[in-house]
Amino acid sequence: MIDLQRDGAVFVLRFDHGENRFHPDFLAAAQSALDEVEKAEGPRALVTVGTGKFYSNGLDLDWLGANREKFEEYLRSVHALYARLIELPAPTVAAVNGHAFAAGGMLVLAHDAAVMRDDRGYFCLPEVDLGMSFTPGMNALIQARLAPPVAHEAMITGRRYTSGQALDAGIVGQAAAEADVLPAAVERAASLAGKDGSVVASIRKYLYRDLLAALRGPVLTPAAE
Amino acid sequence: MIDLQRDGAVFVLRFDHGENRFHPDFLAAAQSALDEVEKAEGPRALVTVGTGKFYSNGLDLDWLGANREKFEEYLRSVHALYARLIELPAPTVAAVNGHAFAAGGMLVLAHDAAVMRDDRGYFCLPEVDLGMSFTPGMNALIQARLAPPVAHEAMITGRRYTSGQALDAGIVGQAAAEADVLPAAVERAASLAGKDGSVVASIRKYLYRDLLAALRGPVLTPAAE
Amino acid sequence: MIDLQRDGAVFVLRFDHGENRFHPDFLAAAQSALDEVEKAEGPRALVTVGTGKFYSNGLDLDWLGANREKFEEYLRSVHALYARLIELPAPTVAAVNGHAFAAGGMLVLAHDAAVMRDDRGYFCLPEVDLGMSFTPGMNALIQARLAPPVAHEAMITGRRYTSGQALDAGIVGQAAAEADVLPAAVERAASLAGKDGSVVASIRKYLYRDLLAALRGPVLTPAAE
Repeated sequence: MIDLQRDGAVFVLRFDHGENRFHPDFLAAAQSALDEVEKAEGPRALVTVGTGKFYSNGLDLDWLGANREKFEEYLRSVHALYARLIELPAPTVAAVNGHAFAAGGMLVLAHDAAVMRDDRGYFCLPEVDLGMSFTPGMNALIQARLAPPVAHEAMITGRRYTSGQALDAGIVGQAAAEADVLPAAVERAASLAGKDGSVVASIRKYLYRDLLAALRGPVLTPAAE
Repeated sequence: MIDLQRDGAVFVLRFDHGENRFHPDFLAAAQSALDEVEKAEGPRALVTVGTGKFYSNGLDLDWLGANREKFEEYLRSVHALYARLIELPAPTVAAVNGHAFAAGGMLVLAHDAAVMRDDRGYFCLPEVDLGMSFTPGMNALIQARLAPPVAHEAMITGRRYTSGQALDAGIVGQAAAEADVLPAAVERAASLAGKDGSVVASIRKYLYRDLLAALRGPVLTPAAE
Repeated sequence: MIDLQRDGAVFVLRFDHGENRFHPDFLAAAQSALDEVEKAEGPRALVTVGTGKFYSNGLDLDWLGANREKFEEYLRSVHALYARLIELPAPTVAAVNGHAFAAGGMLVLAHDAAVMRDDRGYFCLPEVDLGMSFTPGMNALIQARLAPPVAHEAMITGRRYTSGQALDAGIVGQAAAEADVLPAAVERAASLAGKDGSVVASIRKYLYRDLLAALRGPVLTPAAE
């Protein structure tokens, strides 16, 4: 489901479970892998990557449908993954090998940098078309990482961004051919791995203190309660 | 003064009163028209458009000069129009057929999307050159919808943005020839009309909760009081 | 160390002290020069410029090393310079003739506009590579003036921006050849000098009220205390 490999200073966390939706087991495995990255010694940086057509399609709606009573607890664990990346004492790069939709797109936004495949795959926040709203933590994450006109268009229109459009919008910082997405992300991560992880984390924690508070606060908006 | 027509899923609200300054009758007519859009059934989206050289030049300074005792009440009604658009349960597109100045430019910013005429007409916040400040609600609207460097330049320098410059700055999302501005806005609105208006409004209301609070708060800044 | 000249409506404040690091005498001289600009009559605007390869390299780490007990007082005086520019009743333009690093880069961000030399020199926030964090006031300044993806990359990766990259990122608004940086900044300042300085200051003070509060609050982040 999730596989962590270290190559020199770069850890590659590969999501390998179809659409890479956030099943509770997936979330637990991701947290365990991040424990390992956090405990490691020496210069290090993290790359996350999916498999095939999907980086991640976000919430596991099938599981949620069968476990409605765990809705809030589940959303808290998704928030916790975003918060974990923001607090991770190492630079992070998303290798967006395919679709990054909804909560999976927001996972991209929780990284320090992102490289996106340029021939196929979209970044998309389709909640508006699914009749869903964004949690306070998700609102805070999107607003903390995207310019106001981009956040508006992504959230209100559910636009599907190609890599070129995502690059222009500042959603990702780099585009690459399919075969080059992971190597480019690893190269970017290696270039950042020399930074003191505790300093990186310290800067992020203060910069995003309001976001982190929102990710640890209520998962329902007042209107949705 | 104001005319509302429905063509399929798209309502076109045309401002047709010279410079389309916000006379109290204009504001009341706009609110009535938005009542009608809100009450309508089925998929729908709204386009607003001016006439001739003007989208809107903003506050009706002549009327204000003759009714100084109504200054705050008047500004509250301008704020209310912005808030109404942000809460409208339907996607909204501004067809910027000509000048969008001051409070008229801010009206553009209260829409979900904007198409701007590419041969003539400016987006401009000239308050600095008129010796005026921005109300707390106007500050919040501009800051909620524009990237920081754009908000700064627009507010502090009073720059007149052509459509190309407004596009680059993220003030509008599309430019079109004069004859194509309204058709392009209608096409954009039609493409958004299928979204569930109540979901659109719900997402906007939480995303812009601080802005909506500012639009309903005091209309004078502490310094101006 | 610092020299103030008036040419018509434009005051040129030249920093001429090597790397133009913020020695306490430098900060005091800058404040005195700004007193003079503030007291002057008639239309006016300010240009700041460095000399040779440096606009400013920021904090005077040598002085700080020898005066550790004055750390907080010193940071307060740096914050005060940023706040002074934001409140100055005149438009301000940075002529970025060379390196603008760390607190010197943030000084650029405290101006209304900036022109950057296009063949050499970087804008860079290298704190992450120096093991330093940003004060609450510095966080607020960077976040108030840069789009979220730009603030993130600048602060977390310590990227060195050339003038072209800084222009694309919205860090500066104009690039120019070495010999044209100051003339272009003076021309830009002259074009803004006709604005009523008290209105400019009034708009800035409300727009940046949270930033000004942060610049006057604690200089240490909770984590650093």
